Amino acid sequence: MTTDNRDTHSAVYSAGLDIGGTKTLICLTDHNGAIQAEHKLETKLSHDPRQFFLWLFGELDRLCRTYGSSLTELAGIGIGLPGVMNESTGILSSAPALNWPHEDIRPIISRYYSGVVVLDNDVNMAALGEQAAGAAAGAEHFMMITVGTGIGGALFLNGQLYRGARYSAGEIGYLNLGPGANEGIDVHTGDKPEDSEFGPFELAVSGTGIGRQAAELVQDAPDTTLVTKLASGTVPEARHVFEAARQGDDAAASILNRAYDLMAVTIKNILITLDLELIVLGGGVVEKNVGYEAEIARRISRYTPQTSVPIRRAKLGNSAGAIGAAAAARSRLAAAGRSPMTL
Amino acid sequence: MTTDNRDTHSAVYSAGLDIGGTKTLICLTDHNGAIQAEHKLETKLSHDPRQFFLWLFGELDRLCRTYGSSLTELAGIGIGLPGVMNESTGILSSAPALNWPHEDIRPIISRYYSGVVVLDNDVNMAALGEQAAGAAAGAEHFMMITVGTGIGGALFLNGQLYRGARYSAGEIGYLNLGPGANEGIDVHTGDKPEDSEFGPFELAVSGTGIGRQAAELVQDAPDTTLVTKLASGTVPEARHVFEAARQGDDAAASILNRAYDLMAVTIKNILITLDLELIVLGGGVVEKNVGYEAEIARRISRYTPQTSVPIRRAKLGNSAGAIGAAAAARSRLAAAGRSPMTL
Repeated sequence: MTTDNRDTHSAVYSAGLDIGGTKTLICLTDHNGAIQAEHKLETKLSHDPRQFFLWLFGELDRLCRTYGSSLTELAGIGIGLPGVMNESTGILSSAPALNWPHEDIRPIISRYYSGVVVLDNDVNMAALGEQAAGAAAGAEHFMMITVGTGIGGALFLNGQLYRGARYSAGEIGYLNLGPGANEGIDVHTGDKPEDSEFGPFELAVSGTGIGRQAAELVQDAPDTTLVTKLASGTVPEARHVFEAARQGDDAAASILNRAYDLMAVTIKNILITLDLELIVLGGGVVEKNVGYEAEIARRISRYTPQTSVPIRRAKLGNSAGAIGAAAAARSRLAAAGRSPMTL
Repeated sequence: MTTDNRDTHSAVYSAGLDIGGTKTLICLTDHNGAIQAEHKLETKLSHDPRQFFLWLFGELDRLCRTYGSSLTELAGIGIGLPGVMNESTGILSSAPALNWPHEDIRPIISRYYSGVVVLDNDVNMAALGEQAAGAAAGAEHFMMITVGTGIGGALFLNGQLYRGARYSAGEIGYLNLGPGANEGIDVHTGDKPEDSEFGPFELAVSGTGIGRQAAELVQDAPDTTLVTKLASGTVPEARHVFEAARQGDDAAASILNRAYDLMAVTIKNILITLDLELIVLGGGVVEKNVGYEAEIARRISRYTPQTSVPIRRAKLGNSAGAIGAAAAARSRLAAAGRSPMTL
């Protein structure tokens, strides 16, 4: 009886959680997807998934109660995690912020919650959010690319997320730049000079990559570049490069020119390969720099064949992941015939 | 009554047709997919689809009759066409061999045949053939790439063909080689120096592209290159380059080195983007050169991240398209619940 009441009457229906390395966002929605609450908290990182979910479900239950509901009354929960989430094995990998053992996390989750749970990569969840209520509303074939510390990517094809054979589709940070063009990479051994966390494309165009190129610039010509002045003694970051370029600095403009060109040709090649209807760009570097997506669109138009596909800025910002995670839970419920959406 | 008899008793159940610019292949299968007949004939090209299908269905009916059946008794027909086939509008475009008007061909087909018809691109049909009975048997996520006069590509994702927003997914011949690296192409206007039929990647690695590079080589150094000798007065072709390289000619090896490298980095980047489980290579250039796929696999292993994905040679050769077209018809029938396969 409570189940039926809940599905049709309770305002809080599903929850979306977006777990970041520093912040966790929680979104509560009703069964139509209308957002009832959004809540941001500091992520309590733990290398032990038991400790982590004890904390997480405590917070979620507390939030539900402030809305007259509780954890056990939720019809479904979606969780976006910062790594490669294999939902069929329950193992999260390539998630340095959490660094959990290669272990099925589903039994741990089921101690706290027995309803429908959808686990996925955080960028996939953000793409679902933009598709449900943002820049890609209603799109059937699109890619979301996030440009921040690293480069993230999510593919939405034929009306659904495409995850690939090992749940790592869309990880375009690792793209190679062409024969012999993987600067700083030994293409014969694949060895990278520094850490192995970043891929060749990521090293050229991500915030971290642009910052590193600025650091080299400052080292080579400390007195003549505007980046040195803007960084004023600190390690130069991507934001100093964007600001210097805005002020007309040639060296900074040259770093951005290469980053924009590589992003443009990469997107163009993805459009050719996948025949998408839309690209959505998000992440800190895009959010902080007005005109980023227009600059990419302008450069893409130089390449053949010249079919025009919109390059749009993400609309939901940091909320996309939590909104998408809640949407993922609702759509899994609908597919299982357990939601009023299917009636 | 005849319908029921046909589904369960007739040996000839569905037909697959692969329309090429010079040859047309017809494959008749029973309802389990076992091949009952394969037939090759000269394509009677016509710029009028009415004339073309009059010819085609006449040939198909004649073939069916030699197996005790007839066109009207077929449960389904799959047709692979050499161009971009939009099944939702019925319009075939980018098909220079046929060059039909932008017109819905489905009403023309229905004059001759009223059962289930599946229309698709020829490379998509070949990929379905390899997935049904060839090098990709049972695969859920793979790409088929054909290297011949041009470059063709078909994507099979999540257990089905992925066609994209405008039915042109997989057309990787148009891939750009990187900022400023589209040799011979003005990246600012997109103008190509010669015909516009070929894309930048295609101009570098296809049979036609390799032949053109050989022609330049012969023009620059007619007396010193082995290619001149092998071509013995004719226009040099890709086969002369492969043969010269096998005999140790440095200039020929250098052309192939670049083509192999570009194919390897392109496949690697596709694997990173789509997280596939397999690549199938087919087409004339691959078929005629033993070790082509091994050479590509060796070069791919130089790039990061180093996950190993099999690079396999296509198994069905020129029959792949017709076999796949018949499989497409059977699977459409099964999806519609009209086939014994679903019982």
